[in-house]
Amino acid sequence: MNVTVSRHAHFNAAHRLHNSSWSDDQNDEVFGKCNNPYYHGHNYELIVSVTGPLDPETGYVIDMKVLADLIKEHVEDKLDHKNLNEQVEIFKERIPTAEWIAVTIWEWLRPHIPQNLTMKVTLYETPRNFCEYSGPQG
Amino acid sequence: MNVTVSRHAHFNAAHRLHNSSWSDDQNDEVFGKCNNPYYHGHNYELIVSVTGPLDPETGYVIDMKVLADLIKEHVEDKLDHKNLNEQVEIFKERIPTAEWIAVTIWEWLRPHIPQNLTMKVTLYETPRNFCEYSGPQG
Amino acid sequence: MNVTVSRHAHFNAAHRLHNSSWSDDQNDEVFGKCNNPYYHGHNYELIVSVTGPLDPETGYVIDMKVLADLIKEHVEDKLDHKNLNEQVEIFKERIPTAEWIAVTIWEWLRPHIPQNLTMKVTLYETPRNFCEYSGPQG
Amino acid sequence: MNVTVSRHAHFNAAHRLHNSSWSDDQNDEVFGKCNNPYYHGHNYELIVSVTGPLDPETGYVIDMKVLADLIKEHVEDKLDHKNLNEQVEIFKERIPTAEWIAVTIWEWLRPHIPQNLTMKVTLYETPRNFCEYSGPQG
Amino acid sequence: MNVTVSRHAHFNAAHRLHNSSWSDDQNDEVFGKCNNPYYHGHNYELIVSVTGPLDPETGYVIDMKVLADLIKEHVEDKLDHKNLNEQVEIFKERIPTAEWIAVTIWEWLRPHIPQNLTMKVTLYETPRNFCEYSGPQG
Amino acid sequence: MNVTVSRHAHFNAAHRLHNSSWSDDQNDEVFGKCNNPYYHGHNYELIVSVTGPLDPETGYVIDMKVLADLIKEHVEDKLDHKNLNEQVEIFKERIPTAEWIAVTIWEWLRPHIPQNLTMKVTLYETPRNFCEYSGPQG
Repeated sequence: MNVTVSRHAHFNAAHRLHNSSWSDDQNDEVFGKCNNPYYHGHNYELIVSVTGPLDPETGYVIDMKVLADLIKEHVEDKLDHKNLNEQVEIFKERIPTAEWIAVTIWEWLRPHIPQNLTMKVTLYETPRNFCEYSGPQG
Repeated sequence: MNVTVSRHAHFNAAHRLHNSSWSDDQNDEVFGKCNNPYYHGHNYELIVSVTGPLDPETGYVIDMKVLADLIKEHVEDKLDHKNLNEQVEIFKERIPTAEWIAVTIWEWLRPHIPQNLTMKVTLYETPRNFCEYSGPQG
Repeated sequence: MNVTVSRHAHFNAAHRLHNSSWSDDQNDEVFGKCNNPYYHGHNYELIVSVTGPLDPETGYVIDMKVLADLIKEHVEDKLDHKNLNEQVEIFKERIPTAEWIAVTIWEWLRPHIPQNLTMKVTLYETPRNFCEYSGPQG
Repeated sequence: MNVTVSRHAHFNAAHRLHNSSWSDDQNDEVFGKCNNPYYHGHNYELIVSVTGPLDPETGYVIDMKVLADLIKEHVEDKLDHKNLNEQVEIFKERIPTAEWIAVTIWEWLRPHIPQNLTMKVTLYETPRNFCEYSGPQG
Repeated sequence: MNVTVSRHAHFNAAHRLHNSSWSDDQNDEVFGKCNNPYYHGHNYELIVSVTGPLDPETGYVIDMKVLADLIKEHVEDKLDHKNLNEQVEIFKERIPTAEWIAVTIWEWLRPHIPQNLTMKVTLYETPRNFCEYSGPQG
Repeated sequence: MNVTVSRHAHFNAAHRLHNSSWSDDQNDEVFGKCNNPYYHGHNYELIVSVTGPLDPETGYVIDMKVLADLIKEHVEDKLDHKNLNEQVEIFKERIPTAEWIAVTIWEWLRPHIPQNLTMKVTLYETPRNFCEYSGPQG
């Protein structure tokens, strides 16, 4: 009997979409306004979902306070009020699209979630655009 | 050709998270503020989703008025404005976590939904915490 | 490594639920207020979700601007501020329930999405009722 | 000591913006897509706000159940699932813009609210457009 | 040049509407399900709004972190996960309707907000019911 | 008979809160994470509200399409996907707090709204923080 529990979190950040192996014209053509060299930013809304059996003693899949603390330590403290391109090492290699940010958050959190549970990350870049990632075989 | 239709409903209730086989200290350590012996409460937002083929004559998976009436009779009338621990029999055995409430709602509704349709329950305990259950093999 | 990206859009339309092969009484009994011969209407909120691998050069599953333009051309321009029964050919054959509208939108958009990506349509008819369709084998 | 209490309600309706004293061209130029002779529609979200002193015995400005019943009888039953132009007498004289609908709802409800309380109507025509009316001297 | 700034916060609590000077029948008639002796509960969403001139050095009306801390200390720590009737002294005298809770929160916060600023409290008891209080001359 | 109509819009931008006449320590103490020299960002949600009498011929206070176009030209085109500190001249003098951005938007739009109408700007910096400005005598 598997149940999924989900927890909302959020962080604000600046970013720029830019492929450094491309010409400026190519970047401008593909990324448009998102390529602005001075950056723009978003309020990212994050939902972390964890699936598994109920613990018979607590009635929890996972303690929401524990999950909230993991999100704070491994995601919010690294990304909140940051410039993703300039201040978060991994986004020197990965263009900080919503997709790559979601994959990165998944990779950061996954080792801290018990192995018998599965995990999914949903990331709203704006209230109108969002993306989801459930891991390499998700 | 399967389509999923979903219907929102809601109820307000008081509850307390407490495992009666544990000491007070253990309850306090695990459940924290949620263990308050005087109870606290939530506005639960419920989404019931039903999946199956379209009826060729109505274009419906299931009539939303029928689904809304089933939710009213089998869920809202039992839980709305209630103290879950004190006034809902099953939560004397099951700790009324969001997870167990979702599982219970699923079990209450499932017998009333046609066998060829599948069903999922999504339950928001707060706007920031929610859980989902699709049945024993979901 | 598959990621899902989703884009919100919206359109307003009038409709009526009516099966022309039924008597007026039967229509009234099944469809109730939704059978009003003078029509009623909704603000439809549409979410189109596309799943697939990240493009290694852009970090995108699909460019959101491209997806937004496809939705505008193939959905919004056909449905926005329209009477679905009277002005949208396919709904002379299909009763414009939320289910059939979602299926129709999926069929209209699918040919324009790359073959290696999968697609899902979520359609809110009201903030309290919505439906989802992922294609014939979804 | 004045407090304001507010109650949400909703109804779905079809309408068309059309000034019958104008030419078709003039209607088309001013009202654009909203002039569609076959109608379009909306999910109207209504908030009725009532301001006044607290009743010392109940701690209420007005009983929310009473207010909800008044809204049902005097607004929802008249407008829900209706074609405003064709089926609601007053909109043969008043173009059913969000503004006129809000004013009309205010006029319908005002006589049923105690004289010592003031009242305001907020009407969302879409999640992106709304209007407010507080009466002739509001 | 006055600007209003607003901050969201939230707390969960159990309560019961009951006038101890009335008979049980009268309580039942007026308060209905809200009179349940075992309590029910809500997720209260609180918005505190502060109006005044911009500080010329900071561009702030009031520092949002300061306002958030005041709300935490003077409201959330007193009300979150509590039984309002049993565990919050003032609600032994005041029936904990949304109206009285809003007035009480206003009275608790007002002394901590600079005298040259005005303050308003908006309290959602459910997503469908809310109330507002701006002080004795508001 | 005055009615208020409101229109939602949105833009994404990067910013930094920094008073150049202060020391770094003072900036850090007052603005905290918002002082990050590499910037962070937000999805700003904007609501522009206009109040006045109904035009007897259209039933409008102001044509929403006209209002939406004014917002696009005078606000979105200047601020969307921009770095407010680096790319918007006026924010070299005004610290781009939510308050100053709201005042600036009001000043930019006011000359384009008919003189007999009043105007208010509501700006959400995040879903949890927002501010409102109604002009110098608002």
